[in-house]
Amino acid sequence: LRKGFPEVVFCQGKTTAQVVEIIQRLEQSNHTVLATRAGQEVFTAVQTVCEDAVYVELARIIVVRRGEGPVPGGKVLVVTAGTADLAVAEEAAVSAEVMGNQVRRCYDVGVAGIHRLFDQLEMFKWAQVIIVVAGMDGALASVVGGLVEQPVIAVPTSVGYGASFQGLAALLSMLNSCAPGVGVVNIDNGFGAAALANAITRLAYH
Amino acid sequence: LRKGFPEVVFCQGKTTAQVVEIIQRLEQSNHTVLATRAGQEVFTAVQTVCEDAVYVELARIIVVRRGEGPVPGGKVLVVTAGTADLAVAEEAAVSAEVMGNQVRRCYDVGVAGIHRLFDQLEMFKWAQVIIVVAGMDGALASVVGGLVEQPVIAVPTSVGYGASFQGLAALLSMLNSCAPGVGVVNIDNGFGAAALANAITRLAYH
Amino acid sequence: LRKGFPEVVFCQGKTTAQVVEIIQRLEQSNHTVLATRAGQEVFTAVQTVCEDAVYVELARIIVVRRGEGPVPGGKVLVVTAGTADLAVAEEAAVSAEVMGNQVRRCYDVGVAGIHRLFDQLEMFKWAQVIIVVAGMDGALASVVGGLVEQPVIAVPTSVGYGASFQGLAALLSMLNSCAPGVGVVNIDNGFGAAALANAITRLAYH
Amino acid sequence: LRKGFPEVVFCQGKTTAQVVEIIQRLEQSNHTVLATRAGQEVFTAVQTVCEDAVYVELARIIVVRRGEGPVPGGKVLVVTAGTADLAVAEEAAVSAEVMGNQVRRCYDVGVAGIHRLFDQLEMFKWAQVIIVVAGMDGALASVVGGLVEQPVIAVPTSVGYGASFQGLAALLSMLNSCAPGVGVVNIDNGFGAAALANAITRLAYH
Amino acid sequence: LRKGFPEVVFCQGKTTAQVVEIIQRLEQSNHTVLATRAGQEVFTAVQTVCEDAVYVELARIIVVRRGEGPVPGGKVLVVTAGTADLAVAEEAAVSAEVMGNQVRRCYDVGVAGIHRLFDQLEMFKWAQVIIVVAGMDGALASVVGGLVEQPVIAVPTSVGYGASFQGLAALLSMLNSCAPGVGVVNIDNGFGAAALANAITRLAYH
Amino acid sequence: LRKGFPEVVFCQGKTTAQVVEIIQRLEQSNHTVLATRAGQEVFTAVQTVCEDAVYVELARIIVVRRGEGPVPGGKVLVVTAGTADLAVAEEAAVSAEVMGNQVRRCYDVGVAGIHRLFDQLEMFKWAQVIIVVAGMDGALASVVGGLVEQPVIAVPTSVGYGASFQGLAALLSMLNSCAPGVGVVNIDNGFGAAALANAITRLAYH
Amino acid sequence: LRKGFPEVVFCQGKTTAQVVEIIQRLEQSNHTVLATRAGQEVFTAVQTVCEDAVYVELARIIVVRRGEGPVPGGKVLVVTAGTADLAVAEEAAVSAEVMGNQVRRCYDVGVAGIHRLFDQLEMFKWAQVIIVVAGMDGALASVVGGLVEQPVIAVPTSVGYGASFQGLAALLSMLNSCAPGVGVVNIDNGFGAAALANAITRLAYH
Amino acid sequence: LRKGFPEVVFCQGKTTAQVVEIIQRLEQSNHTVLATRAGQEVFTAVQTVCEDAVYVELARIIVVRRGEGPVPGGKVLVVTAGTADLAVAEEAAVSAEVMGNQVRRCYDVGVAGIHRLFDQLEMFKWAQVIIVVAGMDGALASVVGGLVEQPVIAVPTSVGYGASFQGLAALLSMLNSCAPGVGVVNIDNGFGAAALANAITRLAYH
Ligand SMILES: Nc1ncnc2c1ncn2[C@@H]1O[C@H](COP(=O)(O)O)[C@@H](O)[C@H]1O
Ligand SMILES: Nc1ncnc2c1ncn2[C@@H]1O[C@H](COP(=O)(O)O)[C@@H](O)[C@H]1O
Ligand SMILES: Nc1ncnc2c1ncn2[C@@H]1O[C@H](COP(=O)(O)O)[C@@H](O)[C@H]1O
Ligand SMILES: Nc1ncnc2c1ncn2[C@@H]1O[C@H](COP(=O)(O)O)[C@@H](O)[C@H]1O
Ligand SMILES: [Mg+2]
Ligand SMILES: [Mg+2]
Ligand SMILES: [Mg+2]
Ligand SMILES: [Mg+2]
Ligand SMILES: [Mg+2]
Ligand SMILES: [Mg+2]
Ligand SMILES: [Mg+2]
Ligand SMILES: [Mg+2]
Repeated sequence: LRKGFPEVVFCQGKTTAQVVEIIQRLEQSNHTVLATRAGQEVFTAVQTVCEDAVYVELARIIVVRRGEGPVPGGKVLVVTAGTADLAVAEEAAVSAEVMGNQVRRCYDVGVAGIHRLFDQLEMFKWAQVIIVVAGMDGALASVVGGLVEQPVIAVPTSVGYGASFQGLAALLSMLNSCAPGVGVVNIDNGFGAAALANAITRLAYH
Repeated sequence: LRKGFPEVVFCQGKTTAQVVEIIQRLEQSNHTVLATRAGQEVFTAVQTVCEDAVYVELARIIVVRRGEGPVPGGKVLVVTAGTADLAVAEEAAVSAEVMGNQVRRCYDVGVAGIHRLFDQLEMFKWAQVIIVVAGMDGALASVVGGLVEQPVIAVPTSVGYGASFQGLAALLSMLNSCAPGVGVVNIDNGFGAAALANAITRLAYH
Repeated sequence: LRKGFPEVVFCQGKTTAQVVEIIQRLEQSNHTVLATRAGQEVFTAVQTVCEDAVYVELARIIVVRRGEGPVPGGKVLVVTAGTADLAVAEEAAVSAEVMGNQVRRCYDVGVAGIHRLFDQLEMFKWAQVIIVVAGMDGALASVVGGLVEQPVIAVPTSVGYGASFQGLAALLSMLNSCAPGVGVVNIDNGFGAAALANAITRLAYH
Repeated sequence: LRKGFPEVVFCQGKTTAQVVEIIQRLEQSNHTVLATRAGQEVFTAVQTVCEDAVYVELARIIVVRRGEGPVPGGKVLVVTAGTADLAVAEEAAVSAEVMGNQVRRCYDVGVAGIHRLFDQLEMFKWAQVIIVVAGMDGALASVVGGLVEQPVIAVPTSVGYGASFQGLAALLSMLNSCAPGVGVVNIDNGFGAAALANAITRLAYH
Repeated sequence: LRKGFPEVVFCQGKTTAQVVEIIQRLEQSNHTVLATRAGQEVFTAVQTVCEDAVYVELARIIVVRRGEGPVPGGKVLVVTAGTADLAVAEEAAVSAEVMGNQVRRCYDVGVAGIHRLFDQLEMFKWAQVIIVVAGMDGALASVVGGLVEQPVIAVPTSVGYGASFQGLAALLSMLNSCAPGVGVVNIDNGFGAAALANAITRLAYH
Repeated sequence: LRKGFPEVVFCQGKTTAQVVEIIQRLEQSNHTVLATRAGQEVFTAVQTVCEDAVYVELARIIVVRRGEGPVPGGKVLVVTAGTADLAVAEEAAVSAEVMGNQVRRCYDVGVAGIHRLFDQLEMFKWAQVIIVVAGMDGALASVVGGLVEQPVIAVPTSVGYGASFQGLAALLSMLNSCAPGVGVVNIDNGFGAAALANAITRLAYH
Repeated sequence: LRKGFPEVVFCQGKTTAQVVEIIQRLEQSNHTVLATRAGQEVFTAVQTVCEDAVYVELARIIVVRRGEGPVPGGKVLVVTAGTADLAVAEEAAVSAEVMGNQVRRCYDVGVAGIHRLFDQLEMFKWAQVIIVVAGMDGALASVVGGLVEQPVIAVPTSVGYGASFQGLAALLSMLNSCAPGVGVVNIDNGFGAAALANAITRLAYH
Repeated sequence: LRKGFPEVVFCQGKTTAQVVEIIQRLEQSNHTVLATRAGQEVFTAVQTVCEDAVYVELARIIVVRRGEGPVPGGKVLVVTAGTADLAVAEEAAVSAEVMGNQVRRCYDVGVAGIHRLFDQLEMFKWAQVIIVVAGMDGALASVVGGLVEQPVIAVPTSVGYGASFQGLAALLSMLNSCAPGVGVVNIDNGFGAAALANAITRLAYH
């Protein structure tokens, strides 16, 4: 059905044995597999049955490519406020790439040093969809939303402490963004942002 | 800049005098104006200075068209779970229309009578973006997200009582949607859903 | 009093020594014992005093059968949205069996792949009570509640992350179910669902 | 499909005109209609098109009987902690009666005067299902659940103030009931309790 | 003690009679009085006993000047994100003026139109303390905090709806500001911001 | 000042070295010391400097008696709903004893088996103050409060899971107790309950 | 049973007719009646059937004295932080008086002007029990608890705005009081504080 | 830009390698570096590349001094309620010192022993800004705010248990402080308090 869209396995809450079994079944049916929230030990086990599996450690993603790749596609920009948001940002970026999108990254441009953001406006023009990944005050999503006309996908992260309440502050801030054109996904849900970005870019390149 | 995108006035929290003054200033500069959350009494006052203003009561929207209309555009489907979600759905639908989109409505297809949803699958295929408006359990967003590949914009509504906590239950449910490809906006934010939908469809028809 | 209903020990928050002592006392009084939330190390200790104790690892349940079994009984269907809900589902299923019910399982039929649910409608007709186990958006409870006329017992699970808030999202979603005929138990409370299901089926087979 | 089950209209959030139109359509198709959360003014309007409509003020319910009545049925006991819980309790009781059940009431037996509860144990034995309606501490649900073996449906009410947080205290208390066999519905959801009770009693009398 | 600091009366929750009595007592002791959260009807009553009382309607403040004025003082800038934040901003601005500060206003420079903010940087340099008043996403506080080195006092407002939860979103966002040098006061507490700003500027001009 | 009242050390959040140093300083000044939330390793370290220190493991309390004991005193009854509440109950009971009270225990009399409670009514008559320790639904506090006329001190515990939210459910339930005469202390605060009970009994025996 | 303890009617959530009927029934059985949360219109209705009923407007209490009065009793001090806490404080004070206690009041001694508190220490020595009524930060309860040895009953009030969350801030603050000997009742529950204070003083004067 | 203000590295959520690399880059550019939330193992790694790095264990801070020191400056007093607040207090104190301020400490003066606070009033007069660090009830911030006229910066800490909800109780209490002149920073944010204090004292000594 979904041409080129990988089969996705969400590893959290599954045993290593379960993950290995599911991936093996899928790749034997000639589906590209994207496994998210995968630890190193899961990858090691997957490799024993599936030699060409690739592991992107920072993103915690395993990819097993099968069949033709996805139709090449959209232009997705992933932006982060800080360094601690990288893991979530990479989950989004790698997922979007596996789905066939070109991805650019623009990291560490949070509002505490807003000039770094304004230095990168060219990259913002290039993008069809912009994924903004930010924890703590989540203010970057509103700033980006106010600057661009493209759809913005905001990913709150659990980065922070105290009154960040594991990402709740960023989530609420993003839902209340004063700038129109912002859609929000679950806290730390880099994959979900990529899936939505991909659904959007598909419209543009078809 | 944003070709054809109306100037938007959010009336809630403003006095009638303030709203009238802002609308008059904008329409004299030849901008189409979309005023949301406008009560009947605000419209009556706007009419005195701006004869051709149009009021969509259910949507609580005032429209004053000026200049060329927007470039005609995308295909947006607005879906609701129940009758009580209509006001929010119409805020989304009318806003999307004013932005230049074709809009279809598919109302009252909540999961308590899921067959009504399955009777409408043709309309789902037609759409480029689907806006799902639902209160209470918000389950319709997940069901629709699981059925379609297009981007889904979920609008939780404050419809319900008790443990719906003014839309919190639907909001959390939608943020946790098991189906990929769902972005969420603020509770009751029909306008925000339309703005995001429009940003998406612009990609497709340009 | 409650013919055939086992004595139940809730192991969480008790020391291994306490659990062993309670189980021994109960089985010597010729009561069938059902111990929930029991780790492997608790079972090992129980076995030393009670050779024929049985351990269902996935359900984390120890059973020691004594006296006559329960009056054979009702028909309970346990449904889950995803794989990560299995532990809670099995706590429900095994508990219901020990109470004398026939149990069928219909796992991994969440709304992200709703066709899998519709493939199983026969099983739904068979059941007298349906236990729906789901985390994240909890939407499956509403979908099942809308499809069937039998009583539905919804068990939210703590499966998920971010805005699932350890099961709160699923809990609220289920409490706000648009479909009538749904009762909710505590997050992850598989045993409680089974006890309620059993109270219901007793009415039917007496 | 559901033999004898009325069509239900939830009036809250609908205009009087909408309610009248829906009720008229349904009764002309020969369905018994149960309209909940209906104010006096709604009833007055309904009466103009539907002379034999009956209004139960305390329950805020309108009933229009059509066709054969429901198959006569189960035995439902409705229990309340205090006087202020009566409106919710009557919503449950009247709904259950319209669905064909015999209903008994046992009101104002909250734990602050627990002897009144113990004076009524005969009535508890009579029932097939017990609906417990309580606000504030919600403790009555646990006490009843500990006394009886039948299924208990707990309805938290928004009665109380301060840290009752509009029924949250009672809701959480009921979800954490130490007694097995208790299912919970939404705050103030008397109708939902009746629908679940009816689904349960149907099993018993078929 | 506090030279020039007015006596402050918080009118909310007091009867008009109580407010009148307190203000009269204070002004007769030759204290300047600042009464906040005062409605028009309270002012009318105060005027009958205290002819020269002044009412600032937007700020909902009554001022009765007595004795020498405060030592002339600091430079306070009050910034708002939107129009709906004006009442809180004026409570801050008028309070700060009565305490002896020079106050400048820079309103409606929220991040959805961030260029308006950058047009006003001169005014930011002038200030010794900056009070940022914002509802919804509260992002303006972080943006300002990142741009300036002076102390920033952030006032979340209850402006917004849905997931703004009456100012909670802005409050959490501000507490989690990525920019150092930001202190937060209670939601809608314009007076509190002014009192803190005044305590700060006193250090500078003494 | 407070005759016989021990000096109290709250060990949680302090290093072992800090605790040892504080206890040594106090006992050398001839004060009886009560150290709560003390682990076994803390006790071992305390013993090296203070040979006659006594450790009550279940209560996690260290006692070092010095000077004359407290004036012998009041009659305190400690009641628990379940076995998992024992640690908190013993913190209360041992603390109350060290303060000079006679303490009786009545454990595991929760409302799920309410007859066990009614078997102990004699003990309830004996007491001057009753401390009720309960997690989950916290219903026991209301039941006891309804039965007795003496002051009741309710201690919610963090026992439970899911919607108990670490004791929040029990806390809210107790604050909303329908029975008059109930005061509540912090979740798991056995010591605080004892201190309040002691302040009460002092009134009676002086 | 409870000698001299009045029968109590909680008027909130009851119709005027219901309140009148209950009071009449009670006073005819020769019980003293204390009706709390009674508006002026309720009192007017009560007077028509019960001429000697007394209304304390600020406390919103109706008293109808019958039979012998209560055994004269304890010494209760009621303390408030601010003026807006008076209604709750008077509910406590009047209730305690009707139960037979001597009551002294020490109002408006909140920590913002802590010297006023220290001026009243004599009155604190007089009391057997101290009721502290405070909203906003609730800090007064901790300060009083740290100063005195008698039992302190803390009543959080819903006075405040913004992050007071209708009394939640004061409630949490009081539950976390660093000072031992503090018991907390529900937000705004002046009656509950009096009932607990009375249960305590009864111990002392018997 | 900010003369003498150190570059700050927030270590939490960064790998040791990332921290080392950032610190090395900064100190080679001749910036003084302040690294907060640094564990011992991070310091060990930093030392290998930067011999003169200094570690303040209790504050969890690494300092590497480069270039001229900051302009010597303000007078900052850091106050704590209890011993468990020391780590946060030292984060504030050491940060303020590195920014060029004189810092005095006044620890363990919480309201449970309020006389210790009053013994230190001289030190309060000395200060230009006062940082109050407190967990649990957070009452100390209000008490200090009521005593002094200087700006007060309140830092809630996560010290406590149960209904402290990881610092939420103290946070809300401080935001609702009855005393004017109090600004609040995030829970446990000692560094943020120092940065704000420094921004304030700069005004005074320039
Ligand atoms: N990081 C993620 N967060 C949320 N959902 C995910 C994530 N990764 C994958 N998914 C979803 O999880 C589904 C697979 O779940 P499962 O069948 O339980 O492995 C995929 O279809 C995705 O929609
Ligand atoms: N219903 C709505 N909900 C949220 N934001 C809205 C809504 N309608 C308009 N807006 C936004 O409010 C802005 C105008 O706000 P204002 O300048 O205060 O009138 C517009 O640019 C929109 O982004
Ligand atoms: N998984 C569970 N969750 C909640 N309650 C349980 C569970 N398992 C057993 N119970 C209840 O716990 C009671 C036994 O508790 P206890 O006496 O503490 O062992 C049983 O009667 C059950 O009602
Ligand atoms: N202000 C109050 N807040 C909470 N409970 C109250 C209050 N006044 C009376 N009550 C309680 O309410 C009971 C009477 O309730 P009811 O029977 O509904 O009138 C009394 O026994 C008191 O325990
Ligand atoms: Mg935009
Ligand atoms: Mg989809
Ligand atoms: Mg159903
Ligand atoms: Mg039961
Ligand atoms: Mg700054
Ligand atoms: Mg009692
Ligand atoms: Mg004390
Ligand atoms: Mg002050």
